[in-house]
Amino acid sequence: MLVLVVNAGSSSLKSQLIETEGKITRMKCLAEKLGSANASMAISFAPDFKKAVYSVANLSVSQCLRKLLDIMEEEPDSPISGLDQIDAIGNRIVAGGEYFTKATLIDAGARENLAKCEELAPLHNPPADTCIDMLRELLPNTPQVAVFDTAFHATMPKKAYMYPLPMEYYEKYHIRRYGAHGTSHRYAAQQAANLLGRPLRDLGLITCHLGNGGSITAVNHGRSIDTTMGFTPLEGLMMGTRSGSIDPAIITYIMREEGKTFDEMDAILNRQSGVLGISGMSSDMRDVLDAASKGDERANLAIDMYVYRVQKAIGSYYAAMTRTDAVVMTAGIGENSADLRERIFAGLAHMGMILDKERNDVTGQIGMNRVISIDDSPIKICVVTTDEEMRIARETDNLISQL
Amino acid sequence: MLVLVVNAGSSSLKSQLIETEGKITRMKCLAEKLGSANASMAISFAPDFKKAVYSVANLSVSQCLRKLLDIMEEEPDSPISGLDQIDAIGNRIVAGGEYFTKATLIDAGARENLAKCEELAPLHNPPADTCIDMLRELLPNTPQVAVFDTAFHATMPKKAYMYPLPMEYYEKYHIRRYGAHGTSHRYAAQQAANLLGRPLRDLGLITCHLGNGGSITAVNHGRSIDTTMGFTPLEGLMMGTRSGSIDPAIITYIMREEGKTFDEMDAILNRQSGVLGISGMSSDMRDVLDAASKGDERANLAIDMYVYRVQKAIGSYYAAMTRTDAVVMTAGIGENSADLRERIFAGLAHMGMILDKERNDVTGQIGMNRVISIDDSPIKICVVTTDEEMRIARETDNLISQL
Repeated sequence: MLVLVVNAGSSSLKSQLIETEGKITRMKCLAEKLGSANASMAISFAPDFKKAVYSVANLSVSQCLRKLLDIMEEEPDSPISGLDQIDAIGNRIVAGGEYFTKATLIDAGARENLAKCEELAPLHNPPADTCIDMLRELLPNTPQVAVFDTAFHATMPKKAYMYPLPMEYYEKYHIRRYGAHGTSHRYAAQQAANLLGRPLRDLGLITCHLGNGGSITAVNHGRSIDTTMGFTPLEGLMMGTRSGSIDPAIITYIMREEGKTFDEMDAILNRQSGVLGISGMSSDMRDVLDAASKGDERANLAIDMYVYRVQKAIGSYYAAMTRTDAVVMTAGIGENSADLRERIFAGLAHMGMILDKERNDVTGQIGMNRVISIDDSPIKICVVTTDEEMRIARETDNLISQL
Repeated sequence: MLVLVVNAGSSSLKSQLIETEGKITRMKCLAEKLGSANASMAISFAPDFKKAVYSVANLSVSQCLRKLLDIMEEEPDSPISGLDQIDAIGNRIVAGGEYFTKATLIDAGARENLAKCEELAPLHNPPADTCIDMLRELLPNTPQVAVFDTAFHATMPKKAYMYPLPMEYYEKYHIRRYGAHGTSHRYAAQQAANLLGRPLRDLGLITCHLGNGGSITAVNHGRSIDTTMGFTPLEGLMMGTRSGSIDPAIITYIMREEGKTFDEMDAILNRQSGVLGISGMSSDMRDVLDAASKGDERANLAIDMYVYRVQKAIGSYYAAMTRTDAVVMTAGIGENSADLRERIFAGLAHMGMILDKERNDVTGQIGMNRVISIDDSPIKICVVTTDEEMRIARETDNLISQL
């Protein structure tokens, strides 16, 4: 089955065309900084995956996807000559709320429920829904599946997913912790078990998905028992543009003082905070590390705060599980920034997480799953590359094949 | 110097009359559940401290204090026959913001700055300020001192006290972590050092002040390096009626859905959440433990959540310090609930915090500082009784004597 995977982010689009029988990727696409003047899209085709870069200045996520489809129809190297050759579409959806606890075929009813989930992930769900609508109009006969980031966290115990609020808000609005990045945490945990050569069900793992968004999950015997993202992907760690957890009293304080509307306040917390808010220059950790190395004070503070909050979250899950066998690093920063990993684990050696500097060094190692702790480290540290798109393609195939 | 200590809480009043030269307490007063119909005030005098209980139904905190002063003037056992015999008044203030980093004589300028701090601790500062005003009118010639809960936390590093928000909110409104319960954390840390027979400057301690309000502090070499309460005492742990940390997106979500005002939202998070919100029956852990032992499901959930959040906070500070020597339990729940302590440390034995059940047992041990871990526990567990009033009296004496 030829599956087009659509992974729409807040300002990015990842897409792959995957032949599920042989687990063969036919096309890879990564567009970044969408909505800005310097947005770009890199597309590459099997077998050599030579990248062609296109300008997608000021295009929205769904407009960018439309352009990708045009290019796939026209390019001679493309594996397809018409869009009708795509058998199914697998859409990654960040938040499924209590409406969706597993991958789901998108019919009219599901589309309605997807709309209800938008406010749970106001940065991510709306662009994904817009892509779904565009594809439904363009390819009305191609089945679309939604694969949810929240599904893996359905195993959390009540003490972890309930908030200490009046009970009526859970009963009325289903306000509870849902988590996110579930597909990534599940995959990272499984890959770590493979690396350690031990069954996942015997392990206590702390999986760190650190990208522009970021979350950490306690994976006990293969099941998510807690995760830092909550009702929405705003909670938890400091992120590229998101504040993560702050004193809840700050929200009403700022709104009162500044006369902000709800939408403005949500925008401040989701788009103007985090690494961007503190550094004042960029939400991209690569830019900030670069500035910090040149002595920029605010960039250094942003990194210190980012690292410290990751360390504290790792500590809290170390307490939550009776046994931690490994910490697993994945996603943009987790996979690619040896510098950030070194800073994080420099502060955690007393917990038995001892980095091997040479193994941590990224040169020539990108894309290779590996253990980066010293041999004697009581708790192992692993780096795992996300393969979210392959997982989404396979879940899509499984669901469509059962229809 | 005869110092009247006034410790006004959100719905409680603790007061003592202390002769600072000999560290002798002459009068003790504890009023609870103020503002409700079943509020009561227990007063006792040296030397036998036989309690007399008075009804203070529906009185505010300052009205209750006024009644205490009347009783002290009239009662034959009272150490004073007129209020002019009081040399100075020491007021405990929860939040001093960036205006106050040490104990301060309350003159007109200080009173103005105290008003500005009210929104940082909307449950605690206003009743304390009302008490100060009442006393200034009643005893205009008696000097009053404010002793701040935030002062001990002035040593926090920037990575701990800054929030990942746009920098302008720190610059404009001084939005940062201030912490609270500082007097208590400082005292608990010193008492633990005494118990362990080691200098405070050599120790890494995690001090847990668990009362109706609650906070946990990482005390590294005698200095607070991080604490769970933040800009206001709302952040951090689940508390009697306070939510503690939740996904910030929940605030705007509820306000939008329910049309709540800022004041209503603050009241929900500060007065209707926490143990009360989940149990649906009481904010008092004794009531909730009692209901849980009889099988009440919501009471059990409230306890599970409370314990779990304490455990995670301990874990996060275990990560933040390179070495933890002891965890110190203090305040109402921390000192008195052997049951809660047992539940908390049952989940932390894998971290080397191993409780001795017999030593933990509270019978006949209330008020006695002691180690309650097993001899071989790598990290010691201590119980320390708060003596906040004595500390406040001594700080008041020190300041007044220097004038």
